[in-house]
Formats: sequence, C-alpha cells, structure tokens
Amino acid sequence: MTAEPTGTWAGPATGPPTGPPTGTALPDGTRVPRFAGPATFTRVPTIDAVQTYDLAVLGLPFDGGTSYRPGARFGPMAVRQASRHLRPGFHVELDRVPYAHASVVDAGDVPCTPFGIEEAIAQMEGLARDVVGTDGSRRLVGIGGDHTVALPMLRAAHAAHGPVALVHFDAHLDTWDAYFGSRVTHGTVFRRAFEEGLLAPDRSVHLGIRGPLYDRGDLAADTAAGFRAVRTHEIDLVGPVAALELVRERVGDAPVYVSVDIDVLDPAFAPGTGTPEMGGLTSRELLRLLRGLGDLHLVGGDVVEVAPAYDHAEITALAGATVAFELLALMAGAGR
Amino acid sequence: MTAEPTGTWAGPATGPPTGPPTGTALPDGTRVPRFAGPATFTRVPTIDAVQTYDLAVLGLPFDGGTSYRPGARFGPMAVRQASRHLRPGFHVELDRVPYAHASVVDAGDVPCTPFGIEEAIAQMEGLARDVVGTDGSRRLVGIGGDHTVALPMLRAAHAAHGPVALVHFDAHLDTWDAYFGSRVTHGTVFRRAFEEGLLAPDRSVHLGIRGPLYDRGDLAADTAAGFRAVRTHEIDLVGPVAALELVRERVGDAPVYVSVDIDVLDPAFAPGTGTPEMGGLTSRELLRLLRGLGDLHLVGGDVVEVAPAYDHAEITALAGATVAFELLALMAGAGR
Amino acid sequence: MTAEPTGTWAGPATGPPTGPPTGTALPDGTRVPRFAGPATFTRVPTIDAVQTYDLAVLGLPFDGGTSYRPGARFGPMAVRQASRHLRPGFHVELDRVPYAHASVVDAGDVPCTPFGIEEAIAQMEGLARDVVGTDGSRRLVGIGGDHTVALPMLRAAHAAHGPVALVHFDAHLDTWDAYFGSRVTHGTVFRRAFEEGLLAPDRSVHLGIRGPLYDRGDLAADTAAGFRAVRTHEIDLVGPVAALELVRERVGDAPVYVSVDIDVLDPAFAPGTGTPEMGGLTSRELLRLLRGLGDLHLVGGDVVEVAPAYDHAEITALAGATVAFELLALMAGAGR
Amino acid sequence: MTAEPTGTWAGPATGPPTGPPTGTALPDGTRVPRFAGPATFTRVPTIDAVQTYDLAVLGLPFDGGTSYRPGARFGPMAVRQASRHLRPGFHVELDRVPYAHASVVDAGDVPCTPFGIEEAIAQMEGLARDVVGTDGSRRLVGIGGDHTVALPMLRAAHAAHGPVALVHFDAHLDTWDAYFGSRVTHGTVFRRAFEEGLLAPDRSVHLGIRGPLYDRGDLAADTAAGFRAVRTHEIDLVGPVAALELVRERVGDAPVYVSVDIDVLDPAFAPGTGTPEMGGLTSRELLRLLRGLGDLHLVGGDVVEVAPAYDHAEITALAGATVAFELLALMAGAGR
Amino acid sequence: MTAEPTGTWAGPATGPPTGPPTGTALPDGTRVPRFAGPATFTRVPTIDAVQTYDLAVLGLPFDGGTSYRPGARFGPMAVRQASRHLRPGFHVELDRVPYAHASVVDAGDVPCTPFGIEEAIAQMEGLARDVVGTDGSRRLVGIGGDHTVALPMLRAAHAAHGPVALVHFDAHLDTWDAYFGSRVTHGTVFRRAFEEGLLAPDRSVHLGIRGPLYDRGDLAADTAAGFRAVRTHEIDLVGPVAALELVRERVGDAPVYVSVDIDVLDPAFAPGTGTPEMGGLTSRELLRLLRGLGDLHLVGGDVVEVAPAYDHAEITALAGATVAFELLALMAGAGR
Amino acid sequence: MTAEPTGTWAGPATGPPTGPPTGTALPDGTRVPRFAGPATFTRVPTIDAVQTYDLAVLGLPFDGGTSYRPGARFGPMAVRQASRHLRPGFHVELDRVPYAHASVVDAGDVPCTPFGIEEAIAQMEGLARDVVGTDGSRRLVGIGGDHTVALPMLRAAHAAHGPVALVHFDAHLDTWDAYFGSRVTHGTVFRRAFEEGLLAPDRSVHLGIRGPLYDRGDLAADTAAGFRAVRTHEIDLVGPVAALELVRERVGDAPVYVSVDIDVLDPAFAPGTGTPEMGGLTSRELLRLLRGLGDLHLVGGDVVEVAPAYDHAEITALAGATVAFELLALMAGAGR
Repeated sequence: MTAEPTGTWAGPATGPPTGPPTGTALPDGTRVPRFAGPATFTRVPTIDAVQTYDLAVLGLPFDGGTSYRPGARFGPMAVRQASRHLRPGFHVELDRVPYAHASVVDAGDVPCTPFGIEEAIAQMEGLARDVVGTDGSRRLVGIGGDHTVALPMLRAAHAAHGPVALVHFDAHLDTWDAYFGSRVTHGTVFRRAFEEGLLAPDRSVHLGIRGPLYDRGDLAADTAAGFRAVRTHEIDLVGPVAALELVRERVGDAPVYVSVDIDVLDPAFAPGTGTPEMGGLTSRELLRLLRGLGDLHLVGGDVVEVAPAYDHAEITALAGATVAFELLALMAGAGR
Repeated sequence: MTAEPTGTWAGPATGPPTGPPTGTALPDGTRVPRFAGPATFTRVPTIDAVQTYDLAVLGLPFDGGTSYRPGARFGPMAVRQASRHLRPGFHVELDRVPYAHASVVDAGDVPCTPFGIEEAIAQMEGLARDVVGTDGSRRLVGIGGDHTVALPMLRAAHAAHGPVALVHFDAHLDTWDAYFGSRVTHGTVFRRAFEEGLLAPDRSVHLGIRGPLYDRGDLAADTAAGFRAVRTHEIDLVGPVAALELVRERVGDAPVYVSVDIDVLDPAFAPGTGTPEMGGLTSRELLRLLRGLGDLHLVGGDVVEVAPAYDHAEITALAGATVAFELLALMAGAGR
Repeated sequence: MTAEPTGTWAGPATGPPTGPPTGTALPDGTRVPRFAGPATFTRVPTIDAVQTYDLAVLGLPFDGGTSYRPGARFGPMAVRQASRHLRPGFHVELDRVPYAHASVVDAGDVPCTPFGIEEAIAQMEGLARDVVGTDGSRRLVGIGGDHTVALPMLRAAHAAHGPVALVHFDAHLDTWDAYFGSRVTHGTVFRRAFEEGLLAPDRSVHLGIRGPLYDRGDLAADTAAGFRAVRTHEIDLVGPVAALELVRERVGDAPVYVSVDIDVLDPAFAPGTGTPEMGGLTSRELLRLLRGLGDLHLVGGDVVEVAPAYDHAEITALAGATVAFELLALMAGAGR
Repeated sequence: MTAEPTGTWAGPATGPPTGPPTGTALPDGTRVPRFAGPATFTRVPTIDAVQTYDLAVLGLPFDGGTSYRPGARFGPMAVRQASRHLRPGFHVELDRVPYAHASVVDAGDVPCTPFGIEEAIAQMEGLARDVVGTDGSRRLVGIGGDHTVALPMLRAAHAAHGPVALVHFDAHLDTWDAYFGSRVTHGTVFRRAFEEGLLAPDRSVHLGIRGPLYDRGDLAADTAAGFRAVRTHEIDLVGPVAALELVRERVGDAPVYVSVDIDVLDPAFAPGTGTPEMGGLTSRELLRLLRGLGDLHLVGGDVVEVAPAYDHAEITALAGATVAFELLALMAGAGR
Repeated sequence: MTAEPTGTWAGPATGPPTGPPTGTALPDGTRVPRFAGPATFTRVPTIDAVQTYDLAVLGLPFDGGTSYRPGARFGPMAVRQASRHLRPGFHVELDRVPYAHASVVDAGDVPCTPFGIEEAIAQMEGLARDVVGTDGSRRLVGIGGDHTVALPMLRAAHAAHGPVALVHFDAHLDTWDAYFGSRVTHGTVFRRAFEEGLLAPDRSVHLGIRGPLYDRGDLAADTAAGFRAVRTHEIDLVGPVAALELVRERVGDAPVYVSVDIDVLDPAFAPGTGTPEMGGLTSRELLRLLRGLGDLHLVGGDVVEVAPAYDHAEITALAGATVAFELLALMAGAGR
Repeated sequence: MTAEPTGTWAGPATGPPTGPPTGTALPDGTRVPRFAGPATFTRVPTIDAVQTYDLAVLGLPFDGGTSYRPGARFGPMAVRQASRHLRPGFHVELDRVPYAHASVVDAGDVPCTPFGIEEAIAQMEGLARDVVGTDGSRRLVGIGGDHTVALPMLRAAHAAHGPVALVHFDAHLDTWDAYFGSRVTHGTVFRRAFEEGLLAPDRSVHLGIRGPLYDRGDLAADTAAGFRAVRTHEIDLVGPVAALELVRERVGDAPVYVSVDIDVLDPAFAPGTGTPEMGGLTSRELLRLLRGLGDLHLVGGDVVEVAPAYDHAEITALAGATVAFELLALMAGAGR
C-alpha cells in the first residue's frame, strides 16, 4: 500500500553525478500537499530508509543549559514542521539543485535526558558520532535545542575532521566561564570547545554580537579563546561584503563549522528564542552572510535556540528551517 | 544504527492474547522524551513498519468543505503532535492496556487535493478502503480535516461492515441539504450519508447540538434522515446517564461509527475549531459519554474540525488526541 | 447594483404577525458567506435603512471608567464581528423565530469622547434616548464598552419605562461608592443608578458574584442600595432553577433591564475582559439563566466588558454576541 | 437621527476640482473615534450611499485557491478593521489630499462560494466588472482573499482598459502551470492571465521574489510568460532606485495593474499570511517602491493574502490597509 | 519621600486580635491603582520591611525537573503579577478578613541554579527553612516552579511540624520512581517524600487524578506509598461533599500540607502549564474543595506548575494567585 | 535573613570615581537568576533603600490620554519585567560601565488616577519633581504610560534645568491642538509643552515621523511650535549620520530631553503599542541614533506607549527596556 506518490531529485543539476548516492527521494510536491506527508525535515527519508547518505539532519532536543527562557527542547519538532513551507528544489542564488547533488536524510532526535547536562551531552555526542562517522564522507546539520548542543556536535566534527574554524552567528559570545558554578551551559559552550582543542587556533569568528556585557573583561577572555567578535554595529559601518571578507581571511582553508543561534536575528524576525536581544540582524542579512560562505570548506553546522512557545505564526521556526536548508545547500555543493 | 530504545506493550493485560498481532511497539517513555522521537500518533509504528495490524489512525488533511474558519487541514499534524502528551499505557476507567490488546499503526495522511471536494473525497475514500480492508478485521480512526471527511470514512466502514449506526457528537446537525449550491460540505455530509444508504435506519443520534438554526424546518429534515438530536439543554435536564441510555436504545446491536466534531466542546475547551458555538459540553462530559459507549459494537470513528491556527497552548489538539486515543482504547477491547 | 442577495425573515413563525414592522431583512445565509457582507450585528439592516423598527442594537465604545485592563472600547466592533458566527434563524429552546417577530436594526456606535467620563455619558445617554424613544414601543440592547455605559442605558430605559428591576450578571457588585475620588466608574455605576431613582426599590438582583471584597461593609452597602446578591457559591448549592425562582420573586412584574458583564463567566469562557475573576459561571449556566427570564417584562439590556485585546479565537466576543442575540430573542417574543 | 457627525474632504488641495464628484465624505476624526463609526475602508461611504464615484474598494473574500495556510477569506474584514488606524487626510510624500481629489467608496464584498474555484471566480468577475464599468472612468482596488482573486480583477481591468502591464510584488512567481491538476490556484494565476491575453506583452515585472523553486525550469517558464523577476537579492545589490527604473522602463506607457501579495514583506512585517518566506522586503522598502510608481498610468490594483488567523496585533492587516490606501492615493492623483 | 499611600487591614474582623503582629500593611486600593505599586504578592510588604510575620509567600523559580513543557521558572513572577487582580480584603465564603488576622509578607524568590536539581533543592530547602523557622509559629506558601519544589517545601514543613498529611491536587500521581534515571523530578517527588518519612503514614490523598498511566502497576505503587487517589471520574460520581468527607477522614488531626498542581484544573481553565491533561476540574470545583479544608490543621502549602509562556490573558496565573490567596486565607484563620 | 547575594558595580570603569554615590548595588547575575530577584528596573535598588542617587527610573502608569488602543498603563510593569533580560554591565559601544558611574534607583510608580487627565498629570508632576529635585544633580527616566506623561516629565525637567531642547522619536508629531475638545492628550502634549514655555525655542526635533496626516496644515502648525520633523523617508535618503548631524546642529548646547515613543519603531519591532504605523525605524536604527546623542547635555527622558496586551514574546517591552537602559547609560557618562 503506497499512501504517497514520490519523486526523486535524481537528475544532475550542473553536471553528472559522481556516483551513488545519487539524490534524495521526496514526495511529489504537486501531488502530496506540503501540510501532509512525512514529518521529517523537508520530507526527506528517514535514516533507516536508505542504504547510505551524504548529509544528515539530527534533532538535539535538549534545553537544560538555558539561563533564561527554556523551551528549545521543542525546537527540532518546530523546525521540522516549518520546513514543510520550503520547496527544496532549485536554489536560485546558489544556482544549485541541492537534493540532486547529495543524498539527504533525517536521522531523528537524540533520545537524551532532560535532567542532567553531562549525561545528555554524552548521549548527543554518541549519536552524532554514529551519524557522522569518522571518514569525513558524511556531514551533519544539528537542530537544537539550546546552544549547549554545539559542544557534542563539535566533538563529532572534530573526530571526523580535526580542529575546525567556527563561524558563529549569535547575539552573545557564549564564551563565559561558568554560570551558577556550571561550566557547560548555553553561555559557556565555546570556551569549553576551545579548551578541549576542538577549534583551530585563531580561526574562529562571531558575527552579530550585540548588547551590554556582564563585564568589560569578557571581551579579552573571548579574544584569548581565539575569537574575533564582529558586532552588529560594525556590520552597520562596514557592510556585509567586508564582513564576509573578514570571515574568509580568518577562516582560511580550515574545515569550517557554522553555528547559528537564531537570536542573531532581531527579535522582530525571531521572537521565539530564549534570550532575545534588541538590535539584531535582518533575515536578509543573515541569508546573505550564509550564502557568502559557499566557497569555504564546510564540514558541519547547527541552528539552535528556536523556542516555539515564544514564536508567532512559525516565523522563528521557519527562519530556523531556512537556515538549516541553506546549510545543507551549501554543503551539497561543497567538496564534491 | 538505532536512535531510539523501544519497548513493547506486549504482555496481556486482562487475559492472554488471542493470537498475533500481539501488541504495539512504542519507544520507552522513560528513555525517549515524549517531545522527541517519532511524529506518529502516540509514537506508534508507521503502517509500513509492521506486517499486520488491528487498528489504524489515518490523517485526512482536507478542509475544503468549511463554511466559516478554515484550517482543519492542519488538524492531523496538530493532533499527532499533541498526542505526545499522552501516556498510552493503562487506561484506568476502562481497566485496559489498549496497546497490548491490539496492534495499532499510523497510516499517515491521505494525499488529497485542497482544490476540489469531489476529487478529494475520492482520494480519501480510496485510501481509507485500502487501510480498513473488507473483511471487518481492521478498524480505522480518522483524524480530520473538516467534517466532510466523514463521508469517505463512512463509505469505507460501510464497505466492510454494512450500514452503521452513527453516534455523532457535534454542536451542529450537519444534515443541511446544500450550501452555495454544493451538496457535499461539512454541514451536509450526514444527509448525503443517509441518502447513500450508509446509515442503518433510525439508529443514529446527535449529541451536544445547540445554538439557533437557519430554519425551524431543519429539525424535521434531520428527523426524516433518521436522526435523534440530543441538545445540550436536554443533557442539562436529564444528565449523562440518561443520555447514554437513549444512545444505547437507539443504536441497539448495529455496528457503530462514532464521529466527534471537536466543536461539541464549549469554545473554552476547544477554541481551535472552525465554527465554535457557545454553551457546549465540558471535556469531562465528553469523556464520560465516550467511555459509556464501551459495550457497543464499534467499527470505526473520527475526530474532526481541529483547526490549530485558532488553538491556544494546544488545548484543542490535546482534546482531539485524547478523543482519538479513547476511540482506540474502546475498540481495542471491543470485539475481541 | 446589488452586491448581496438578501432574504427576509418575514413569515410568522408561531402565529400571524400583529402588524408592521413585519420582520428583519437579512442576507441569505446560503448565498452570502457569513464571513462576508454587512458588518452590522448579525448582518441586520442599519438604522438608516429602515422606516421603523422594534429592537435596536447600539454600540457604546467607551472604556474610560475601567479600573484594571482597558480595551472594552473595541467591544462593539468585536461583538459585531463575532455575531457573524450566529445563524439568527429559529431559536430552538425559545421555540421562536426572533427576526420574524420583530424588526431589528443596528443603530451604529455612539460617537463619544474617550477623554471624559461625564461628557461621554451625556453623549451615550443622548443617542440612547433618541434610539429608544419615549413611548415604550422600542427596546434597545447596548454593547459596551465598560460597565459605565449601563448608566446612560438605564437613564434611557427609565425615560421610556419608569423605574426598572435590574437583573445583573457579574462577578462584581459594581455598587462601590467611588474610585480615586470618581463617583462614576465601571465599579460604581449601580450605586449611582440607585441614587438617581432609576431602579425600582428592592427588586434588583446580582447573579454570579464572587471573589473577595475590599471590605466586609461592601455587602451591607449593596443591600442598602436595594440589591440581593446571588454568589456563584449559592448557585452551586441551590442550582439554577432555584436561582431563577429567586429572580422571579424579586423582580415581580416590574419592567426589567438585564445587564450582563461578560466577566460573570469564568475566565476560561471569557478571557477577553478587564477584571477577570476565577470561579465563574459556565456558558451553559449563563444561557440557561438568561432563557429562564423569558416570561419577565424585559424592556432593555446590555452586554459589556468584552475587551478583545485579551480574547482568544474570539471566544469572549462570541459569548458577548450570543448573549446579545439571546436578549433580542427574549424581547422579540415578550410583550407582543 | 444622525449618529455620527461627518465632515467632507471637499476642498481642493493643490488646485480646483475638475468637476463632480468632488471628494469623499468621512466622519470627522476629531469627533467620531476611529474605533467607532462605519466599518467601511477608512470609513468612506458605501457604494449605495453615493450617486457616483471615482475609486472603489472591493472585498474578495475567497481563499479556496490556497496551497498552504488558508484563512485569507477573512482578509477584507481584517483590512477594513485595520484601516481605522489610518488618518486618510494629507499624504505627505505624495503631497496630496487623496480623498479631495477623488470620490472613494467601499463596494462591499463579493458574495462568492467558498466551495468552487471556477464559480467563485465568475462571481468575483461579475461584480468587479459592474463596479469598475467599461468606460475607464472608475478604478478599483481589490482586497483579497488569496491571490486567485487577481484573475477576475485582471479580467475586469482588461475589459475597461485593454491589456495591462502587471507590477507584481510577491515572494513567489505565481506562474506555475498547475497544482494537484488544478489550473487556477493562487500559484498559477498569472500564467492563466498571460494565456488569456490580459497582460501587455513583455511589460510585466515581479518584485521581491525569493526562496527556492520546485524546479530550475520554473524561471524559464516565467520569462516565457512575459515577466521579468526581480529577486530581493537583486534589490540588495542595486537598491530601490535602480529597481524602480527597471520597472519604469519595462512598463512604459501601458496601463498598469499593481498586485501586492502581502508576503512580499518579510514574515517579521507580515506574519499573517499563507505562504511566508524568510528574507523579504521591509515595510519601508515596499512603501518606497509603491510611491515610486506615481507617474505610471495606474488603472487598478489589489492587495491579497492577508490571513488574520496568523496575524499578531493587526500588523499584517495594517500593512494591507496601508498598501490599499497608497494605491488609492496614487490613483487619486493619476490621470486627473 | 512616600510614593504610595498605604492603609492597614488592622482591625479585627470576627474578634479581637490575639496579639502582635496585628495585620498586614497594604497600599490603599482606592488610591494606588492595582496595576501600579509594589510587585509583591497582593502588594504585601517584603520580608525585610517588617519585624515579624505569621505567613510568608516564597517564590521557587525552578523548572529543571520538568518532563514535558518547561517554563514554570517564570511562575512566581506571573503569579505575583496576576495577584494584582485580587482585592485581598474580606473573604466572603470564609467570612474572614485574612490580612487582619495575620501579618503576611513576601519573602522573595530563592536564588537557585537552573542547572542542577540536587543543588537547587538544597538552595530551596535552605531558604524555606529560614523563612518558616522551627517553632511552628510561621507558615509558608510556596509558589513554583515545577512540582519538584514540593520536596524542599515538605522538608521545611517537616522540620517545623513533623510528618504531615499531604492533600495533593493534581492530574498526575507524581509518585513514579524515576525518569531517565533521575529519582528527583516533578513526577517522582512524592515517592521521595514518602521514603524520607516526611509524610504521616496513610494520611495522604490525591484529588483530581486523571488520564492514562504508563503502567497498571503505578496504582499499586502509589497505594504502597500511603496515598489514596481520587480521580475526577469519582468526583463526577460522588460529588464534592463526599470527596471532602473522604479527605477529612483520611487526614484526621495530622498537620496538613496542601500542594496544588495547577494542572488539576482542566486545560480550559489552566492552559499555562507543562503537562496539561484533558478532563480536569473546573475552577469552581477547586475553590470549593479548597474552602472545604478550613477546619483542618494547615501548616503549609504550595501552588506549582504555572508556566506563563503557555498562558493566555493571565488566566492560569490568576488561578494560581487565587489559590495562593485561598491558602493564606485558610491559614490566617486556622490555628489562632 | 538575606535571600539574595548581591554584588556592586562599584569600581570605576574608565577613571576614578568623583565621590559618592559610587555605584549601584545589584544582585550577582551569576548567582541570582535573572528570572528571579527584585522586580525593579534591571534589579537596581528601590529609592527607599539608598541614601542618595544620581539617576532614577519612574513608572508613569497612565493611559487615559490614548486615542486608539489603550493599555500603556501596564507599560511600566512590562518594561521592568523585560529589563530582566538585560545584563547591565559594560556598554560596549559607549565603552562605559554605566552603573559604576552613577547610582541608579527605581523610584516605583506614580499612584495616579486612571479617571481624570488633569488630576493624573498633577500627581505625576508632583512625584517627578520630588524625585528629580531642583538642583540639577539628579536626572530621571520616565516609563510610560501613554505619551501624555511627557508633559509632567517636561515640567519637572524644566523646574530643574530650564527650557529644554526636545529630541522626540515618534511616528506621530503629537503637536495637534485638541482631540474631542480635550487639549491634553497623547496627541497634543508637545503643543502644550511649547505653549507653557517648557521647550527652548527652535531647538526641538522629531525623528521617525511617517504616515498621512489629518490635514496639510498640521505641518505648518508643528513648525510654528518650534519643531523640525525628520520623516523616515528622509532618513532613507540621507542616512543616520546626516540625521544626527541635523539633530546636533539644532539642539546646540541646550539641555536635552529625549522622548521615545516606542511606535517610532516599525510594528514588526514594536507591535505592542497603541497607534502603530507601517514603515518605521528598525531597532538598530533607533539604537544608533540614540547612541549618537552621547555628546549632548542630556537632562532627562522617557520611553512611552508600550502596551503589553498587544505585545508578543515581550519584544516591545524589551525594546522599551533597552531604550531606557541606553538613556541611563548616556546620562551616566554625561555631565560628570
């Protein structure tokens, strides 16, 4: 019994396929309404339904590291649901048919405890490593969850690719040392990644930082951890082209991990998040900056901090889904 | 690679199983958070993952027959999402472990056009017939969608079981003749079912009817179609026990189809619906009336008119999910 | 050019009409969708479109007397909008076709200042008197606005009918003496009406009162103003039939004005109001109590305190519209 | 009896009137609160209340052609309600008193079926033709409704003015061939208009297009239908002045129809719509582009896809109302 | 400088005060609007502003033990804000002026970590013990937070009063053994309390339990821990008077701790909570049951699980605030 | 008993302190969660808790001067609540530790009547004068309330500093003469301030004005009152740097009062306000313009028109809180 007619983005878009896997099977969008059909990310197959794959989406439903508004545990669910809006065919700006270039799967959610940060991180790291493997042929986009989930994701990326340059979109540095005595939270995760050696030295960059800090010394500590922080005020002054140039210079040819905290967007564009901050990027700025990363060597990424209880009309979840799709599209072309 | 530990409600609850299938495999609720894992109804397996099954849930994402607020096309999605709240283990009032008694699957959504009522009905009828089969061994709970979807559901039930007694919970009669010249809409569907011979003569009943009518003659027309309408005002006067007695007398030993328009609940309990009507049932009244149907011969049912764009905090979707689960639990015990 | 087909509820329902006006012209509900067409209350004609009328609806968009959440100035707009949900044909419980019995019109909104209580009251009183006239042949249902609007409404009723018995549904007594030195506010309006002699002595009753008071003495003051307060707790104990009996005894054959503060309903049923109070009536209780007033001599009424900014899915506005329709239906049959 | 004081924007603003009709009668905004008074668009008279008129607003409450979130059937109601916010006096950027230049009326809503696309289109076309007439002296602004309503609007414009240049603001091309086998939906309407010869050859333009496509070939098909698509990414690169220059070159001296899908705005600015797409225009960009059309020969227009169930605080409806007012203001000055 | 005029509920209401403290100083409600002034619970003084006190309210902003929707960390804030609605003067049903009987203070919030359950519990227990003291003269009402906070509250009550009878209003038993290997969560807290000897043997009762269970054995385990579970279905059958009789028999003369999970209310009455369950109590039932506890020996209590991100129009927070006020009113009269 | 650990921003940031007061005591943000602790603005001390202070925040909970959507009476409460999001430490763009430079207190709310504009203004003026004093050493940031509150604030500023230059961010001029015969409303307040001589001649400026006007003559009247209006359209054309240059030239060395109507932001950024207007500033533009005022002689300011009933996810309240913090930060450095 076949409930849903399916098609396949099988044909090569800009050139012949280089071998199997040769594309992603999707329901036919003109026969299965987008509000029906599989609840996977953009309705790609589940990981159990395919023999092999190039790119995977993994839900990381953990928000135990949140310092203000919790609720990002429902982020994977909301982002998948909003991904139904997307028509994942031809990407015009990238001139690419992403799902023909790569076999994309949805690896489901990590079943992790809501009650202990360390245990949950271990659970997330375990499944992320399984999904991404160790030979560098598979890449992963994580969907949070609060920003704590970036630590296990970086560990899995490091296991497959060695130290990475982090391109980090966020309103906040996330390099504080500890909150309430806890050293692994959504505000300290990149200090830990630095200390663990997951990051390539002096190749990482924050984009979209804004708002006051607890302390002036926070900036020096951030620099000491190998970061360059680009504030929204700088983007006002120099523009997105110069900001991208700075990113490219800094990153060089290192493998790149892109982490997008949805609160890099202004609260008008992303109300559904845990620590909103006035004065953020517009959605067009974020898309332009992301698309400008196309010639880097992307090896993984995440979109985090979508907290649907604070969202309206799915606009934050849709932004999260679009960012995840852009990351997949960038990776579908890169490295082939 | 196994992302999610699973358990099975395999053991008999009140007696030995009578043969395969012997229960429904579910994720272990103490290891896979309810906000994670499969997006199926209460996380039961998909229809493609099992060899056989007793009971199936089918999404009917169609709202083209709506006369006021549309949006029930998103009902199946919302009801499945809210079903994550449920712990589908032991049903205390029914003293039953439903998923041990029966193998329950999620048959997905009917891929039907949003643009034509007749075509969509044919698509829904086709898949419903496939899922329910013709030998009477499988039973189906449909999740709408607007009330139009009850017509293909009744046709499928009729194909397997012959004419049925309809126990219909609703604020509205839904036996009007036509709207805007259209004879199949969410307000006319049971007149059509009567005319097609799908209903056993004079055995059907509406419960929870209220509000003014377009015309006094609507009542006579309803009676002529073989219905007895129990208004909420009557339930105030006679109480639920007497109302159930009336249902039982009327239904007798006919096979019974239970159709629940969520607007039978007061708008306080079910704001997320298309044609709310002040003065409805409470959620406890509805549950009590449903549970009182346990000794009838239930052969199918539906819950319809959940329109999530008007819902708040998922309370309507949760009511819809709970009603669907109650129908499954009633059927899991009946007829075995 | 006629944009909208219209029908007329012209035929007598339970007997021959007693003379002109002979019914209310409405758009045909099976040809003009309820979400389209005139924005008047249940799409009745505007007052300027008819020669004469029996019953009128008047908007009183004033909320300058509100002590907590303002916003009832948008009440008339919201109640009219929600009245589109209603099918104002045959009223089953009253066994009546209200709009055939009476010519009903929408008299629009009083253009009153938001900036001064006294001036606004004078403006409301002026237009209410014009609409209701002085010969007792026309009756008026006001749509607030905060409860302050009941004072000009009572003055207009008194001018046509003399002192009235007030049947007052509310969570609060509204017989305080002053707030912040102001003697006319939504919490003091019935003390003023009493002092002005608008109320028939010792014939008035509050129903649905609940919650703590500022002071124990508030109860004695209320009694001194000629009221009997029936708390929800009493209704729990004695039931609606006994409560109605008490009302009837108290009211006797005096002309009756019914004032419904929507906060008499529990916040679950009416979140969209300015001073919600836990523990209120259900919508079915309110409808049952209202319908029990059918044999009284109703000469006017209002429904007030619908504040749509706090509403959800129009459930409060729909309750307000239904109450206004019930008042019209009661009056359409009374006194003929 | 006159409930509401009225004033008239009768005096010429920048020159003597050229003959009757000589302005639009409105309630006096300093005496009748904007939250009270007529529910027409910016409180202009209804079409039945005037002898003649220059410009008309027409509600097109149809959403049966929607592929994702329905609900635009409530768009006309919401846009009219939000238009109360506007002070329709002096338009500063256009240096114009629009309602003195032109007699503006509200023609109400087309009473069309929600149950059949073809029938509804015929009903909309019929009334639109009646309102706009055939001699080119009257112009019409339609308020949707989903984008399907543009087809009958274009037919009516064509009947009065011949083939038009379409200036189309939208996130989507709306020139697909068919959805689910249906050739007239909100995503195919301009392919149909092209095929019917309603559009002047090679003079039309889309502005604000963004997001991925189902297929790379969609772009070629769009070009073949005579369109030039300006994506938001291009606007980032060239700026609004250059974009307007492109529009002017393309349109030339053809009669122009302006169709504004509110989803051309970013979801932050217009959450209340059916197919939101991340990365859209800001409200200031849209206003600037619209005002740049002032020297074109505008003969009609629409604003569509406002779906209030997904709106918040009326911001989408207010954007829709403002766009409709801008179109009226542009037309009030053009061609005189 | 005194920003706010204050009054004092100093006079005895039903008898002479028995000694200092002699009442609670509050802002004068007729001079300081309820939407202004102190942000403490019902605007009582802060704990630092008084010499001594009888009753204290303590915020417990912890939700790290939540298994489904988090957010109750914002509960204390929301309940205090909603408490502004209350007029904490004369309690009619209890015939009592609570704030004249007792000096009531707001003890603020426990500053506890969001990142570790055990550490947070220790922090809560520490401050609760400080506030309540050990001589039994002071009593405490806690405002959660998720239900985990009841454990430190019970420890503090036990330290002052010895083993208590627990009267527990909830949809859920909260006597499971462990979730995800964690033994202290919001679903296991009363099993822990039993094991620690905080509860008087066989004197505790759950009221309002409903919904399916994970396992049939959950009921036996609950009984083994000394509880009697009264399901809503039983309340339907026997009524509130009999339910109260059962509570009284079971509790006897033991010191009583009342714990109210706001989800004991139906989601219609309390949408703003983490694990809503269809079919709950009405707000009137809950108030009636609470007021029926007046002759018991109450020594403490809490109201928990208000999650404002899911609330609407503050109805859940208002219910929480009203419950807290009822508990204070009950204790203000008891034991003096 | 100390519920909350506190720290002090006592150390000088960019130089030695110039004498007492030497900083603001705050709870330690790494030990007291931001969602707990004092409900004052950014958790600064209350005015009664300190001996002296430099800067004060004052709530002005009055909305009786609102012409459209009321509700700004809840603005102070919402802005304080949202200020919990802020980390009021090091201000990066200003390179300043504001709370080390100045002792900042929360002066609470003015207890003013909701029922009379003149009386409320007198109450607000009285307390504002008390808080700000007359010797010019203390400065005040007011939190509205509707824009009417700016009049008493300006009177208090004038009493201490003489005539001020007004830098006014708003969608609307607020220099109309009267509404409904009332001369002091939120739309007329600056005409009154001009007439009273509170404003330095020809030194004031509006920024962000947009939308149509009631009348062309409104602009001349505004100029006559000494204002220069900078419309958003001008900002599009000249950019923020030029706009700031214009402000500086106009203001010169006069003492400056900054009044920010939150509706200067586009409704996407500030939905929670009473008279939204399409086409406003982005939050980044507003912050950039505010920060550009750093070298002016600021003597006071306000942020008004936050109406939380229309807000979503606190984004408007957060914008209001951020603006108030920016004003404090600007003043903390200025004039020392």
